[in-house]
Amino acid sequence: MTTERILEGLARRDPVALARAITLVENQHNGFERVLSHAHGLLGRGGTRRVGITGPPGAGKSTLTEALIQRFRARRLSVGVVAVDPTSPFTGGALLGDRIRMESGSLDPGVFIRSMATRGAQGGLATTTEEVADLLEAFGFERVLLETVGVGQTELDIARSAETTVLVLVPESGDGIQALKAGVMEIADIYVVNKSDRPGADKFRQEVEVMLGIRRGNAFRHISPHHPAPPRAGKGGGGRGRTGQGPADSQWEPPVLATAATTGTGVDELAAALDRHYAYLQASGTLAERRRQRLAARTRAVLERKLRRWLLEATRVEELLALRLDEVADGRRSPYDVAAEILDQVKAGEGGDATR
Amino acid sequence: MTTERILEGLARRDPVALARAITLVENQHNGFERVLSHAHGLLGRGGTRRVGITGPPGAGKSTLTEALIQRFRARRLSVGVVAVDPTSPFTGGALLGDRIRMESGSLDPGVFIRSMATRGAQGGLATTTEEVADLLEAFGFERVLLETVGVGQTELDIARSAETTVLVLVPESGDGIQALKAGVMEIADIYVVNKSDRPGADKFRQEVEVMLGIRRGNAFRHISPHHPAPPRAGKGGGGRGRTGQGPADSQWEPPVLATAATTGTGVDELAAALDRHYAYLQASGTLAERRRQRLAARTRAVLERKLRRWLLEATRVEELLALRLDEVADGRRSPYDVAAEILDQVKAGEGGDATR
Repeated sequence: MTTERILEGLARRDPVALARAITLVENQHNGFERVLSHAHGLLGRGGTRRVGITGPPGAGKSTLTEALIQRFRARRLSVGVVAVDPTSPFTGGALLGDRIRMESGSLDPGVFIRSMATRGAQGGLATTTEEVADLLEAFGFERVLLETVGVGQTELDIARSAETTVLVLVPESGDGIQALKAGVMEIADIYVVNKSDRPGADKFRQEVEVMLGIRRGNAFRHISPHHPAPPRAGKGGGGRGRTGQGPADSQWEPPVLATAATTGTGVDELAAALDRHYAYLQASGTLAERRRQRLAARTRAVLERKLRRWLLEATRVEELLALRLDEVADGRRSPYDVAAEILDQVKAGEGGDATR
Repeated sequence: MTTERILEGLARRDPVALARAITLVENQHNGFERVLSHAHGLLGRGGTRRVGITGPPGAGKSTLTEALIQRFRARRLSVGVVAVDPTSPFTGGALLGDRIRMESGSLDPGVFIRSMATRGAQGGLATTTEEVADLLEAFGFERVLLETVGVGQTELDIARSAETTVLVLVPESGDGIQALKAGVMEIADIYVVNKSDRPGADKFRQEVEVMLGIRRGNAFRHISPHHPAPPRAGKGGGGRGRTGQGPADSQWEPPVLATAATTGTGVDELAAALDRHYAYLQASGTLAERRRQRLAARTRAVLERKLRRWLLEATRVEELLALRLDEVADGRRSPYDVAAEILDQVKAGEGGDATR
């Protein structure tokens, strides 16, 4: 399908065109930025809300997502989902398997679910995921859910590109609670203890609350030579927690909810908490400010990606590199000498047409 | 301290010069690549072995690292440690506090410990961590330990840049075992169940073993349209697990060890397992092959970093970007239009002297 036909299909709200557009963006094939630029012009119109959902594997995020989809559908809200699956050569298929069942199960045109494998994408993954979310928003979905799996920094960063971040834990989350203590899993807007029908769930929920209470109490008293206390209205960066959301911030106390997604217990309360948080964001002016910062960050990311692609494609960099890899591998030259030499060649215009 | 004096100090094996060199590399200040290129010429001489240690927060990795240091020192081996701490504006200081105590406690010149905060480094962090490990190796430390905290992909990737990766879990690792099941925490070379004096530790250790056994059995029978079965001798990339280490691979069965780092139980067994794994790497030829691949990857990473820096510094890219951020934030233009325009200017030589 050509870019032209994809754009035409998107205008007709054809889900096949949407699927193609996502594939185009995921693979960064020719024309992907044209489609994204087009989508960009359609953002912020339909009052789409983005919700990031993260947590350790096995916390029941998929089931919770499904339950949320049902609640949204009952209110006649259309829902798009981007699920970022960890790429495992061993079990990646199993996770995707679940997902495919979920996808094929939804014949409802008001629901669109898309999985993205992480492959080795690293730094670029967050940008690509946000771009796919843009496509879903531009297509007109009123709720866009971003689901990631993990208790690491990258996973949470993706979930945080949404307006509201939900962290899902289960009573067995031993490492999760440790990560929370250590501040690895920075602060979400809403905490959920799922599988709350299991023994020990209530005690666990209280532990999470105590943890958040301690965090709250210490947040501004923290002094360290290496880590200065966070500013009240930071520009994002490290912590977009309670303290990074602007002056009105202290008004939002992240709730710790109990759910049992399989039976539906507590899902209405979660949906209500999402509404409350969005209302808070609007009322405090945080929503507009956060959107501004996100757009600035995106522009920078897109430019860096473009520059890098241009350099690697238009110049003979790859070729020059291939010629010298043996010398490096044999220990005859250092990676730094070789890189400096290639950069000199690119600068001098020997690297190809890029510098002419 | 000038680059010249740092190099001179390193030649004298002055730990102050080493600390300065690390700071230089961490901040990528002027001359950092010269120091690294110099260090590169000294690698692989002293038979240094690198060990990556990762696991969820609270698993006792620091205590285990300390216990390992003692064992190495008893064998008169010098030890350098790079500890990558998650940057939390709230608790980062607390973690670093522990570390600083550990650092100041080691008046032994045969031990050097350095913490690195993750800040927002993302993709660049793995390269910088490896570069700091290079400095420690070039300085002559016979064992270099890389310690990371987390159950995410990034954290494990860093630990994996070492020759041997150790994954530390504790009986409470509910999420850890789920991550293992889901394949998020890909395969380490050695598994450690620490705090093995706690109730349920033995059952937990057996669970890990069962998990690895299942993984092992399924590894080559896995079929998925999205994730083709992993090649037997892959080029790294996604999974450097049992299946990615080359043909002789199947000979290494990752052991699951039980330790209690605070009392020292099982630490000798861990040290012995490290020796066994290194011997296996040498005998199978995997060590040389892995080193080759690592050098190629490093050269590519260094070149990309250089190109990016050159573009951002030598051209007026940042200035051009700043001029247009308001238009993007106001929704008048898309990030893609703006990025394309700036790239055109850079190409046409309007961006500064970089293209002349």
